[in-house]
Amino acid sequence: MQNKILLPEDRIPKYWYNVIPDMPGPLAPVIHPGTMQPVKPEDLLPIFPMPLIEQEVSQQRWIEIPEPVREIFRIWRPSPLFRAHRLEKALGTPAKIYYKYEGVSPAGSHKPNSAVPQAYFNKISGTKRIATETGAGQWGCSIALACQMFGLECTVYMVKVSFAQKPYRKSMMQLWGANVIPSPSDQTNAGRAMLAKDPENGGSLGLAISEAVEDAVSREDTRYALGSVLNHVCLHQTIIGLEAKEQMAIAGDYPDVVIGCHGGGSNFAGIGFPFVADKANGKQVRVLAVEPASCPTLTRGVYAFDYGDTAKMAPVAKMYTLGHDFMPPGIHAGGLRYHGASPLVSQLLAAGVIEAKAVHQLACFDAAVLFSRTEGIIPAPESSHAIRGAIDEALQAKEEGKEKTILFNLSGHGHVDMTAYDDFFAGKLTDYEYPTEAIKESLSQLPKVD
Amino acid sequence: MQNKILLPEDRIPKYWYNVIPDMPGPLAPVIHPGTMQPVKPEDLLPIFPMPLIEQEVSQQRWIEIPEPVREIFRIWRPSPLFRAHRLEKALGTPAKIYYKYEGVSPAGSHKPNSAVPQAYFNKISGTKRIATETGAGQWGCSIALACQMFGLECTVYMVKVSFAQKPYRKSMMQLWGANVIPSPSDQTNAGRAMLAKDPENGGSLGLAISEAVEDAVSREDTRYALGSVLNHVCLHQTIIGLEAKEQMAIAGDYPDVVIGCHGGGSNFAGIGFPFVADKANGKQVRVLAVEPASCPTLTRGVYAFDYGDTAKMAPVAKMYTLGHDFMPPGIHAGGLRYHGASPLVSQLLAAGVIEAKAVHQLACFDAAVLFSRTEGIIPAPESSHAIRGAIDEALQAKEEGKEKTILFNLSGHGHVDMTAYDDFFAGKLTDYEYPTEAIKESLSQLPKVD
Repeated sequence: MQNKILLPEDRIPKYWYNVIPDMPGPLAPVIHPGTMQPVKPEDLLPIFPMPLIEQEVSQQRWIEIPEPVREIFRIWRPSPLFRAHRLEKALGTPAKIYYKYEGVSPAGSHKPNSAVPQAYFNKISGTKRIATETGAGQWGCSIALACQMFGLECTVYMVKVSFAQKPYRKSMMQLWGANVIPSPSDQTNAGRAMLAKDPENGGSLGLAISEAVEDAVSREDTRYALGSVLNHVCLHQTIIGLEAKEQMAIAGDYPDVVIGCHGGGSNFAGIGFPFVADKANGKQVRVLAVEPASCPTLTRGVYAFDYGDTAKMAPVAKMYTLGHDFMPPGIHAGGLRYHGASPLVSQLLAAGVIEAKAVHQLACFDAAVLFSRTEGIIPAPESSHAIRGAIDEALQAKEEGKEKTILFNLSGHGHVDMTAYDDFFAGKLTDYEYPTEAIKESLSQLPKVD
Repeated sequence: MQNKILLPEDRIPKYWYNVIPDMPGPLAPVIHPGTMQPVKPEDLLPIFPMPLIEQEVSQQRWIEIPEPVREIFRIWRPSPLFRAHRLEKALGTPAKIYYKYEGVSPAGSHKPNSAVPQAYFNKISGTKRIATETGAGQWGCSIALACQMFGLECTVYMVKVSFAQKPYRKSMMQLWGANVIPSPSDQTNAGRAMLAKDPENGGSLGLAISEAVEDAVSREDTRYALGSVLNHVCLHQTIIGLEAKEQMAIAGDYPDVVIGCHGGGSNFAGIGFPFVADKANGKQVRVLAVEPASCPTLTRGVYAFDYGDTAKMAPVAKMYTLGHDFMPPGIHAGGLRYHGASPLVSQLLAAGVIEAKAVHQLACFDAAVLFSRTEGIIPAPESSHAIRGAIDEALQAKEEGKEKTILFNLSGHGHVDMTAYDDFFAGKLTDYEYPTEAIKESLSQLPKVD
């Protein structure tokens, strides 16, 4: 039986799909956190290079992927699409389950899909150095790799507790030539202020963002890079879904439901938006985001204007949010612990174009173990949410005795996340209740936007 | 520029190449360590199932790969062949460098190529349970995965110091359902004897082999599995070179030199033996094994009968050896620290059909860093020896102003070996002198075989 569908490298897409022209209604403005007025493109120039700012607001449906970007993509793209025969059999489901596997990138996740073009567009715009932040390290690894490929310097502010707890990802960044600085650091005002207040502070993603942005805006040769949430990041990730559509066609199939795990939204947008395009053209397809119950942005948040970061330095955007003060419990899927969501994903959800559901941590690890033991590949804890979503759809099909075609995105491998599995097997993991009170509290802090 | 050559999964080879009919002369007998008489196939039945024993001595040039084995191979095979354009450019060499990448397997190395058929042939022979040993954990992971796929129980005796130092690989084995026991253990006579003598003993590969073999022969439902050295393991790994030949042909190229790193010999045999077949048919091609200078079996050992293990329980085979007592320094390429070599590789080297060279640790890490920063993929420390070999060939071509086509096997990724890179960057690694005195001492302990 055919197990995987490969595309030759000349089938790497030549264009990204931009969902903006197919959105249900105009985009909400992005608000400057200082003036509380709409941000103008030129306001962003100290932070991002012009080509990325243009992509952020572009109304073009198809945006060309430059050849030097495709050249680097050839290291791992097109990524394989698998049919999960053994998982289907273990579930006893009539459903067909396909998955697109992004763990084949050198960094082990989908993140280089945006890191590589971000480095490239910075390079051609004269940027010499990128400053960014990373939590668990997936994004930091990816931007380090991408900067190395285009000869850019790279500084990564890594949340201090992760710097200590995720030494392998830190080492990968260093191997790819990046300067990795534990945050809070003494390199920025934001870092120094925190250290003065609390010398033992272990850092947070919000603070690391503040340090990276401050670094970028304070140096003429440096720009900032973000690994999720933004429109241009979602754009870059659509290469996942575009390839998957071609591979599904080769398999002679089309999904009834397309599933991605959801944190900031980039891998979900990547697999999902090209199918949203089909929906806009009248196709019947469900597009489902699966998020952790401990950080239920899409299912328990509100659709409102909020800051992108805890420190209120990032722009204010209209999105599903749990409130910028919300601090989720310490689940192992570190990449899904964000209070907000991509504004594009949020608008599609608010309009009923896509769906969202929340799943609990233990059920995700159950799914990841079953997947590892049938399909062989060890998933990242983040990706296990998509697997859980797919398995639930397949079990529902079994219960209903219905055929169903399921496609999900396996966004990364878990080789560097094995302590999470250890903790699961040792019974150290728990399911958190929905953090109802914490959400209520943090939602009372939303900014007022006219 | 084309970066990689993929084959569709229906091009997974249907036959392994058995080099035995093409050997320069008859095979030396394998000697029973107790009787010191040649081993008869049936002597091995408590250890291996009959199909593998038959493969061990088969004179058939082509041996069929069963469909259920190919079915599991479809998870990652055919593996990609890459052209290293960016590495070539960084070296400024006129040489063309190709590499076959085996790190795409779920275990991250070439080892599942033999683990999967070993599990399969055990399954169809009625084995219920496999016992094996592992040092750094690459083989243990692979056999755990393979046993899970065929519904076999799996017990892995893991060298105790590695059990503590390589927690990720231990966790991977457990995720794939294996029972991982730190060796020395209280499960076997060999283990108990060592613990009685030295309760704090950290174990060794030799002792772990002894425990696994004892476990296997003492239980009717259990057989033993070995990840390198043996003829049938080399046979299984030839799938690497067979695919690579087809991919080189698609690229319109043929190698002047084929390179693999060398520990016990399995990945080297895998990439090399199919080209040895071409050599037997008159083709001009060099086949080069690259080993660590700290464990220079092929370049400083002698071609003689020796025990396969330290405890003198394993069969005695004619091979290049540093002496079964030889204990190499603690280099980071744990998979290359074996005192002996595959008897097939040894005989080919003695006959001048293949070549060998030894390289130092720091030069290998230099090569691995350059490779990571140009090709993107982070190599396992073992694989870095093949990279060093390839780079040296390419630099020689540059010096001589000659064209040259180089093919090497990138046997695994280094995501789980990042502490080795940390130590390298921190200046903690050293090059060891050739351990001349230790070799001399251990070579004085060779067994006498008539």
